[in-house]
Amino acid sequence: MDASLRLDIQDLYTDYAACIDEGRFEEWPEFFTEKCDYKIIARENYDRGLPVSTLFFESKGMLKDRVYSITKSLFHAPYYQRHIVSTPRFLKEEPDGSMRTEANYLVLRTRQNTLSEVFSTGRYVDVVMRENGRLKFREKLCVFDSELILNSIVYPL
Amino acid sequence: MDASLRLDIQDLYTDYAACIDEGRFEEWPEFFTEKCDYKIIARENYDRGLPVSTLFFESKGMLKDRVYSITKSLFHAPYYQRHIVSTPRFLKEEPDGSMRTEANYLVLRTRQNTLSEVFSTGRYVDVVMRENGRLKFREKLCVFDSELILNSIVYPL
Amino acid sequence: MDASLRLDIQDLYTDYAACIDEGRFEEWPEFFTEKCDYKIIARENYDRGLPVSTLFFESKGMLKDRVYSITKSLFHAPYYQRHIVSTPRFLKEEPDGSMRTEANYLVLRTRQNTLSEVFSTGRYVDVVMRENGRLKFREKLCVFDSELILNSIVYPL
Repeated sequence: MDASLRLDIQDLYTDYAACIDEGRFEEWPEFFTEKCDYKIIARENYDRGLPVSTLFFESKGMLKDRVYSITKSLFHAPYYQRHIVSTPRFLKEEPDGSMRTEANYLVLRTRQNTLSEVFSTGRYVDVVMRENGRLKFREKLCVFDSELILNSIVYPL
Repeated sequence: MDASLRLDIQDLYTDYAACIDEGRFEEWPEFFTEKCDYKIIARENYDRGLPVSTLFFESKGMLKDRVYSITKSLFHAPYYQRHIVSTPRFLKEEPDGSMRTEANYLVLRTRQNTLSEVFSTGRYVDVVMRENGRLKFREKLCVFDSELILNSIVYPL
Repeated sequence: MDASLRLDIQDLYTDYAACIDEGRFEEWPEFFTEKCDYKIIARENYDRGLPVSTLFFESKGMLKDRVYSITKSLFHAPYYQRHIVSTPRFLKEEPDGSMRTEANYLVLRTRQNTLSEVFSTGRYVDVVMRENGRLKFREKLCVFDSELILNSIVYPL
């Protein structure tokens, strides 16, 4: 894979993290193709091939619905997120031009009047492809390591 | 932006972190242009456009003065820092050749006889430019997420 | 150093982390040359040039022996690891083609029914070279910041 494409995929990951961390949630679905899978799933289930996920959205419409919940209807204490994401691994280029990529992530959470704390850590297991010239996620699995969750996951990981 | 320049800017970030983490503080001001802004500011203030900063230096001379404080006059318990910095985002190239870049950071602190702990997390909001052929920061804002600070910030972030 | 080689070295680091984090320990020695040094050493000792290490292996055979211990004979509570590794610094290319590289690392640990926690943070101090066309570590020093260790280090860092 050439250096320029690799750096473009790296940018996809950093732009994605910045979008969420800055709370620009209405832009978040635009990182996905029209048909897409977004899952938050415990590593314990993922490693055994068990399908049960904490969250599972399977279209951009469902992502937009989630954004509506987050910003308009869910009652929750607000918090900041901060993503630290490793450089992605490039695992496979499929015949249809899509690419399997993975990256380790750490999300820190900061609530009002508290110190920043480790909120979630795990691995993104993704399929990236171009749609209208722009790199997007066709699949994004957030495979988190701890089956315990601090309070609840409100914002996207 | 070509791959080579992007990797050079990435190097600037990793070299900067290494300089601080290894305690080579006297080299720290050399990462900045002669005229420069270095700020440590709470996200709460930054997001609202409020100017109050925890630290604000506006020349390389002030940075050198800070180094003198850290190494010679401030009374404090020593601690190690460890930066984990995301790959930078390349936001804009200005007509004068300077570049707006950002990166997420996490700083861990280790004091004697304690475990490593999350010390500060946030975002660098920077302006990078060349001075005498070397990439430097003309502006570096450390926008930290938590308004609570563990003890005090002695060393640069 | 050209962009392509730099990205290849970056891949070495991300592949290394993935191997350990996914628990594919039997593949871990293959990231090292036949003759190699692998050390886990406290920063306090490293900075003073003191040789005492927490772990010290000096051949691929010893690494394989360690893998046998981890997977077959050591009695320990299992835990997940998650590495977040900075992009590497390229410090020096030696006449024999080997390269001195360094990277900051953070390892998070997740035990059953616990939250993820900071396990170890520090710096990799490495020598990378090609063996049979593949980039490998001839030396890998894991210089950790805290002289306190949560329980014990079972898996490789």
